[in-house]
This record gives sequence, structure tokens and C-alpha cells, in this order.
Amino acid sequence: MKQMFSALSGKIKENAIDVYMDSIEPAVRDPVFFSVGMPNGGMIPKKELQRIMNEIFEADPARLYEYCSAKGFGPYVDVISKTENIPESYIMATNGNTQGVDLVCRMLLDEGDGFAMEMYTYSIAFSAVHQYRLKAVGIPLEQDGLDVDFLEKTLQTRRLKALYIIPNAQNPTGVTTSLEKRKKLIELAYQYDFIIIEDDPYRDLLFHGRPPSLFELDPLKERTIYLYSFSKVMAPAMRTGFILAHPAFLKKLEQFKQVTDACTSPMNQMLAGKLISSENWPQILAKQKHFYEKRKDWTKRFLQHMHETEQWEGAEPAGGLFYWIDVKKGGVTEWMKMAAQDGAVFVPGDAFTLERGRNTKIRLCFAYCSDEEMKKGFSRLEESFKKWKKTST
Amino acid sequence: MKQMFSALSGKIKENAIDVYMDSIEPAVRDPVFFSVGMPNGGMIPKKELQRIMNEIFEADPARLYEYCSAKGFGPYVDVISKTENIPESYIMATNGNTQGVDLVCRMLLDEGDGFAMEMYTYSIAFSAVHQYRLKAVGIPLEQDGLDVDFLEKTLQTRRLKALYIIPNAQNPTGVTTSLEKRKKLIELAYQYDFIIIEDDPYRDLLFHGRPPSLFELDPLKERTIYLYSFSKVMAPAMRTGFILAHPAFLKKLEQFKQVTDACTSPMNQMLAGKLISSENWPQILAKQKHFYEKRKDWTKRFLQHMHETEQWEGAEPAGGLFYWIDVKKGGVTEWMKMAAQDGAVFVPGDAFTLERGRNTKIRLCFAYCSDEEMKKGFSRLEESFKKWKKTST
Repeated sequence: MKQMFSALSGKIKENAIDVYMDSIEPAVRDPVFFSVGMPNGGMIPKKELQRIMNEIFEADPARLYEYCSAKGFGPYVDVISKTENIPESYIMATNGNTQGVDLVCRMLLDEGDGFAMEMYTYSIAFSAVHQYRLKAVGIPLEQDGLDVDFLEKTLQTRRLKALYIIPNAQNPTGVTTSLEKRKKLIELAYQYDFIIIEDDPYRDLLFHGRPPSLFELDPLKERTIYLYSFSKVMAPAMRTGFILAHPAFLKKLEQFKQVTDACTSPMNQMLAGKLISSENWPQILAKQKHFYEKRKDWTKRFLQHMHETEQWEGAEPAGGLFYWIDVKKGGVTEWMKMAAQDGAVFVPGDAFTLERGRNTKIRLCFAYCSDEEMKKGFSRLEESFKKWKKTST
Repeated sequence: MKQMFSALSGKIKENAIDVYMDSIEPAVRDPVFFSVGMPNGGMIPKKELQRIMNEIFEADPARLYEYCSAKGFGPYVDVISKTENIPESYIMATNGNTQGVDLVCRMLLDEGDGFAMEMYTYSIAFSAVHQYRLKAVGIPLEQDGLDVDFLEKTLQTRRLKALYIIPNAQNPTGVTTSLEKRKKLIELAYQYDFIIIEDDPYRDLLFHGRPPSLFELDPLKERTIYLYSFSKVMAPAMRTGFILAHPAFLKKLEQFKQVTDACTSPMNQMLAGKLISSENWPQILAKQKHFYEKRKDWTKRFLQHMHETEQWEGAEPAGGLFYWIDVKKGGVTEWMKMAAQDGAVFVPGDAFTLERGRNTKIRLCFAYCSDEEMKKGFSRLEESFKKWKKTST
């Protein structure tokens, strides 16, 4: 059957994180998954979702059960237009940012295009690199966002078609791009004529307010395409988000959306739209931020302890779900297998870069686990690390 | 911004049906939409959907709100495995058959591949032709399915990579492929080494039972990929369906699904899975079939009347939502605009073929309208047709 597959089928690869996670074999009944990048189950507004879904069933709005346009379900697009303060001509509903990235890449990218991304970044960017055979450039990340001087030097010597960036509480590093760097990136995008793909699912989980998006800072909206998803603040299972883009881009994105899956579920769009419009929504978000900040602090204390004893290092994230830690010892992929066997599962740094090497960094998600699992997981990490140091050269 | 678009962006086109529908301007307050290919609002099991959704919220199954694998949400895949009587390794959840077609095309097709389809067929096939610059062949449709002799002759002279077919109550013609022709198609697929993409959303709306699917008839499951959607029997807004394919295909489809939108909403999968497992489901389907058969009969009587007065012709469909009518006068696209203005909207035959010409055929959806609209719409069609005959040469 091999001869049946398209050339594209040969280019596409399994998600890097999954490859690593498929390679582990926890030997304990109760593994702790610092690897899972999802909201905490207790933070999912289950009762609100049920209440609002029933309100929707009772109200039975026109066309709720029908196909909607590729652009989105009217009442949802209307809510997004208000909350994002942007005309409807700039809005399209998506099934979340994975679809947002896929549609934007289909619209923009040709084989061999130059494609910049943060070094390190979320593996969805690599799937674009593989599918389109892109000339990928990893731009080093600093505490306040990517190294814009490095990017500018790169642009002086080579053409880039697009830059993929997660500006808030970045996955995996937790870095939030400063306002200065956001402004500089917009300048560069107009000067060197590339598109910024702004993937922003963590903005509402910044513990203490958020800077303006690059899309908001883009004066003409001609160089930035903005992707938002409700996966982190409502539930991944909602599969609902949106794209904000210049109408010239949006019209084409609607054509791709239509042939890709016709439309996003109007029922899910209605549910998301009603929930963010509900008076409880601000409290729901505040509760989540408080919860995740507490989790971040626990992880910070654990890191301080490991810094004193093992020189681990890591910058404190301003929000989101992830803590990025440098354990100062190469080959963490080997350690990952050992630690997973002992019941503490994390994602090694290699999953977030195309450059393989003796990586010393790991990503811990402090959101998903229960309180008990966190405590248990931290001590397992410590023991496992000490064991690994002994056994490995 | 033009220079920003990918080559693929230049190939993709707006859906043919939409292009025609965007061109009309009803001059009446109450246009009748025979053009809308959707279930009747009264046939949507709204109360059941609400009841079951609440059962799900109350039961709160593990991982309901999380991402599931690209393959699908466990309990849903389990239900499909039982109802379709196929191992789970052959199943993947989709957002419906538009996505099914998109993923299968990505997996199979390269630029310039030979691609056969029924002449006439649903426009989603054309989007594949445009995106992949396929060498398209329209195979004539007969009362019992496509002309397999024509297909075989074609295969003797040229290589085909895939055949796209809607075997039951086809859109737009209403034709159901006979068992003999299904068997012959499987033979040809193995003999000439092409893949049958079986798009089957209408199977459960056949009024009096259905023949085995081509996938069921495929002995090794190596030449048929099966696509099902709950859009016609539950609600288009569910955006839930599934692909059945050989595990060798399914593994690759999972990779495409993952980079396309991560997964189909586990909430929607759970809702669909519970509904088809509920004891009421057989009655819900029976009620729909009875309703649509009655609508088919009304349309048949209207056609008989128009046959006597205007020589219209059309074969009675064995199920589904559509009646395909030959009005025996070319240029129905002009008439469409006139009829729409007078308040009766249909889709002209040209929307279902790549071959433009003075088409004499139209598609009437007898499902979507209300009873009153149907009656009103039929008389508007008759008056409008007589008017068109006079005014046009």
C-alpha cells in the first residue's frame, strides 16, 4: 500500500512530544504527569458549561443545529467582535490554534520558504516545517522575548516568509515578550515584509495583566495574524477558538476552512460565546490565575531547593502552565525514561527544537496534576535526578 | 499583500454552490430554499440531544474535557467499533465528511494524479481537483450507479489514483449504487490499483434498507476508505463523523488529523456516541425516513405534473434529501436567478460538474423547507419556469 501515499505523507511526522511520551514505561501505578500541557480538571467550569448549554438548548437560537458559514456562527462572531474590539470582517472561528496554524500555513507557505520561530517553541511549528520543507530558523529566546537583534541580522542576510511566535507565557519556556520587543517585531515585519503568526492561547492566564498583542500593535493589520483558543481557559474539548486577520487574509482563510471541515460546531461556538459573555466569566478567569500562580510558586520553591543542591536554574514565568528548567546536565532524554519509570513524567527540551543535542532543559507543566501528585512528583524528580547523576557519565 | 499568499492559495476556489447562491437576489420576503442541503429542523432530535448532553455532564466521564488522541475519544471509538463491527484500529473520529475528504486527499493525492468521480457529484470533490491540480474524470451516472464499463475503459488507457463516490442517495442525483456495481468497483480497484473514497452520509436515510458499503465488500480493506458523518441524521452542527480505513492508512490519517486540528471535540463525540447507543435511536431514524419519504413523494407528484405539462424528468430517489430533475431546457443557471428572484431557490446542475455548458438539470432538496414552503415553492417553480420559457430563446 506504500505506493498509494502522497509525497506529503512522506514529509509529515508524528508530534515530537508524542514520540517521547510513547517511549516511556512508568513502572509505578501512579505516575505523575508533569508532561501533560492541559488545564487542571478542577479549573474547568463544568457547572457553568452545563448551565449555559441548557440555556442554549432552551433558547433554541435560529440555525443552532445547522452548518454555519466557514467564517463562523453569527452570535459567536458578534461576541468576539465586541470582546476583541475588531470588526467582524477580521474574524473567523476555528477549532483551536492547531487548526489556526494549519490554515494560516496553507495560506502563506510554499516549499522552501524561510520560517522563523522561537528557540525553543511548541512542536506544532515543526509540523509546518516538515510539511512545507521550510528553511527553519530558531531565534534564541531571552528573558523578555526573542533576540530581536539576532532576528534583524538574520533578516539582513535571508528572506523570511513568516515568524511563528507565542508571545505570552510561551510554551515551553514560559517567557512573555516585552512591549518593546513586540513593537520592534512589528517594525521588522513591515521593513522586511514577513508575516507574524501570533499564537496566543495563554494570554488570559498571565497572573498580573497582559501587554497588548502584536496584532493590536500592528497599525495596518497587514503583517500579523492572531490566533486564540479557549482550550486553556474553558476546556480543550471545546475545540473552539478564532483567528483575527486582515480581511484580505481572512477571505482566503475562509476558503481553506470551508474545504477543511466546512465550519466549527455552532453549538460549541455558542457555548464559548455565551460563557465569555456571562457575568461569572471574570471570576472564573481570576480563580484560574490564582490557582495556577499558586502552582507556579510551589514549582519555584522546588526549583530553589534543587538550585541549592544541584544548581538547577529556571526563570519564573509570568503566567501560563509551564516552568522551563535547566538541570545543567546533558542528555535529559535518557533521564526522562528513568524518571518516567520511577513515576515522574516530564517533556525533555529536545521536543521543542529541531536541533538535537545533549539537551539540559526540561518542561514541567504545573497545571494538570493534583496537589498530592505535585508533591509526590517533586520528590520523585529529585531522587530520580540524583540516581541518574550516579548511573550516567 | 498578494505576494504573501502561497501557491496553494491561488489554486483553491470558493465552493461552486456558494458561488451560485451568492449570485441570486430574491425579491420576495419569503424565499423557499430548495437549495439548502440540510436536514429539516423538525427532524433534529433536539430534546434527545439536551437530555443526553445532561446525562454526560452528570456522569462526568474521565477526560471528557481534555484533548483526546487524534484517533478519537475512547468511548466514542468503542461505540463505533461495535455499531460498525470493525476493530478500533480501523477507526478515526472526524469533524464530518468534509474533513474526511480533506484528510484522505492529503494522504493520497499528488499534483497531476488521476481522480475519478461521478458525473454529477458534490462540489467537495472539485476542491480536491483544484487544490491538487488533479486530472479529473467524470464517470457518467446511470440509474443504478456509475457506468462501470466507462470506468473500466478509462482505466485501460490511464492511471487513476482514486475514485470519489457517494454510493447511497447520491448528492445531487439521488442515485444509489447497485450491489453488482459495488462488487465490480471493488474488483476494478484491486485490478487497477486505485483507492475508492466512499463518502456515505445518506446511508441511514435510505427509505427501505441499504446495501452493504463498498468498504464492507472490500475483502482486505486495502482499496476502500469509508467516510461517515452524523450531520444528516443528528445535526450538521455536531461536526462529528468517522473514517474507517485499513490501519496502514489510519495511522497516517491520524498524523494528518493531529496537525490539522489536534482532535475532534470529545464532548461532541460523546454526545453522538451516546445518542446512537440510546434505545430511542432506531425510532428517531425511522421517523426521519418516514418524513423524508413523504417529502420525496410530494416532489414526485410535482414532477409528474411538470412532466405532463413541460416534459420534466427525474428518477425517484431511494432515500436521502435530494431530487435531481431534468427540465429539458438548457441554461438553467439563467433560470435559477429568475426563479430565485420570484422566491424559489434551487441549485443548477453546473454546480455539480466541472464541465460547463447549457445544463438542463437542477437539484431540489426536499428536506429542509417547511410543508407550507414546499407547496408555495412548487407553484413558484412552475410559474417561473413558464415565464422563463417565454422570455428566453
